Amino acid sequence: MLVDGEWRTGVRRDTGDSGEFERSETSFRDWIDGSVPEPGAEPVDNPEFPAEPDRYHVYICRACPWAHRVALTRALKGLEDVVSLSLTQPERYDDGWEFSDEQPDPLYGADYLREIYQRADDEYTGRVTVPVLWDKKAETIVNNESEEIMRMLDTALDGLGNGVDLWPEGYREAVDERIADIYPRINNGVYRAGFASTQAAYDEAVDDLFAALDEYDDLLADRRYLAGDRLTEADVAMFATLVRFDHVYHTHFRCNRRGIHEYEHLWEYTKDLYQTPGVAGTVNMDHITRHYYGSHESLNPKRLVPTGPDIDFTEPHDRDDLAGEPPAELTTDATIE
Amino acid sequence: MLVDGEWRTGVRRDTGDSGEFERSETSFRDWIDGSVPEPGAEPVDNPEFPAEPDRYHVYICRACPWAHRVALTRALKGLEDVVSLSLTQPERYDDGWEFSDEQPDPLYGADYLREIYQRADDEYTGRVTVPVLWDKKAETIVNNESEEIMRMLDTALDGLGNGVDLWPEGYREAVDERIADIYPRINNGVYRAGFASTQAAYDEAVDDLFAALDEYDDLLADRRYLAGDRLTEADVAMFATLVRFDHVYHTHFRCNRRGIHEYEHLWEYTKDLYQTPGVAGTVNMDHITRHYYGSHESLNPKRLVPTGPDIDFTEPHDRDDLAGEPPAELTTDATIE
Repeated sequence: MLVDGEWRTGVRRDTGDSGEFERSETSFRDWIDGSVPEPGAEPVDNPEFPAEPDRYHVYICRACPWAHRVALTRALKGLEDVVSLSLTQPERYDDGWEFSDEQPDPLYGADYLREIYQRADDEYTGRVTVPVLWDKKAETIVNNESEEIMRMLDTALDGLGNGVDLWPEGYREAVDERIADIYPRINNGVYRAGFASTQAAYDEAVDDLFAALDEYDDLLADRRYLAGDRLTEADVAMFATLVRFDHVYHTHFRCNRRGIHEYEHLWEYTKDLYQTPGVAGTVNMDHITRHYYGSHESLNPKRLVPTGPDIDFTEPHDRDDLAGEPPAELTTDATIE
Repeated sequence: MLVDGEWRTGVRRDTGDSGEFERSETSFRDWIDGSVPEPGAEPVDNPEFPAEPDRYHVYICRACPWAHRVALTRALKGLEDVVSLSLTQPERYDDGWEFSDEQPDPLYGADYLREIYQRADDEYTGRVTVPVLWDKKAETIVNNESEEIMRMLDTALDGLGNGVDLWPEGYREAVDERIADIYPRINNGVYRAGFASTQAAYDEAVDDLFAALDEYDDLLADRRYLAGDRLTEADVAMFATLVRFDHVYHTHFRCNRRGIHEYEHLWEYTKDLYQTPGVAGTVNMDHITRHYYGSHESLNPKRLVPTGPDIDFTEPHDRDDLAGEPPAELTTDATIE
């Protein structure tokens, strides 16, 4: 049931007394059978959600960095035929993420994503966010937390793809440490800056963000990937923010101290990842800019979409001399439609 | 008399049917005796406003690029003791440019700049803009058009300063051509982008603006100043826009295709001018950012002020090898308070 004012759709400006943006928790947190949530954990025993091909569906928006993690993991692991995927419209207005003739809901013909949440729980009145991992057989939401969906694709469904392992043994602790470190400082750090409601909260968020970017620029001077010489989930999480940074976070979220293309190593790293087979097809800058500039009236009342910086993710990068290389299994570069 | 809704203060979002920003004309257009408005023109004969020291006053805001032209011309020509100057507050709200305890009106103790306009014409209900050239003896506004005030300081009051000539014989046509060319494309071009109300008007404005910046970047590859080897009024007009560009026009006006610091020659040119004695003291980036981000609700409803790009106008430039040099008369660098 839709209770007016209770539907809180997507990333919202939830600011506390001090004007700081505080992201609310996601609501559906189940795991597919055989998932390994943490390093050293036993695989989840959950017969309710078996690891089967063509059973699961992900709802994403190509604009959303959290959804992008899932789309990227699915593409890099070659799970396109195992997990189906569909898109919402990039713009999000008062009624939340919506479908359209151009971006229809292939499962139920829903008009809004909230209908999918209601189908999973008809009492649901919480946040309606992407990504959503949907069980087409049980007709319910398994999980709507991007990191956990990424981890499920990477562990429970690992045997159904192309063999690429984004959470390899020996790297798991390092991967999880990086993911945990960049989430508040960078991935959510841009939102803390953009949705701050006081000058003090903004200033602190921007200081934190650029301190983290400076630190990671240094870290990436002599390692190709965040966890070392292997492409991992940590890079997936980082890339989703970096590829959006100069077009939307820099201007729209006022993170204008420096662009990623002005960082010595972060920019090369971003181009390297962009040029990794499978990645570019998950990036749609038109949807990204339309979403941000079109959806947040408190930041851009006129909803005009800037032309964006004159940068080229396909120009040569300097990362080939570092230890490590893109997974050999990656050859295709299909575009998500 | 203040008629509600008739006072239009400062630079406004006057957009036509097509969403294009159209700047209204200024209202007071008199000339000081002896001014030479155009190349080849006879000096103006106007005994009503004689060229006398300590007779004229300029009201400016340090944030405003049009006012900045006047402050820069006054500083470069050493007219600080000849023409007095005072500041409005940087933020401009519904009642327009205002004075405060921090930035008082030294002449009449006015609260708002509109009172100065009313003192000149008690029927005045037009735009209340800076700069204003005020005649302290006749107690009226001589002129409120920045280019014309710049020209008056440079011609009618030329004999009262340090001897620096910003409109030298032999360069006058070139200077006026440059000023006329950069006004619609660059100086006002950033406003056309920032205050566009439709996507088409924004797109066209940004295309025009960056085409002009690209062209001037090329032009400045082998000439130190816009009119050749002499610092002129054209450079004053250009600098007032370039020095603001990366901090406010890039982000606030969404001119985010490229920063001036990313242009090969425009950036060196901007630093060269900034480092010319007399110039830096006229630049107050705190007032600039507070004004823009704090005054335009349609672009920045939360009025938070971004930290701005990490650039340094004082770092070395490469322009000394080009023909021409800063006027030798320039030695001081007083700050406008």
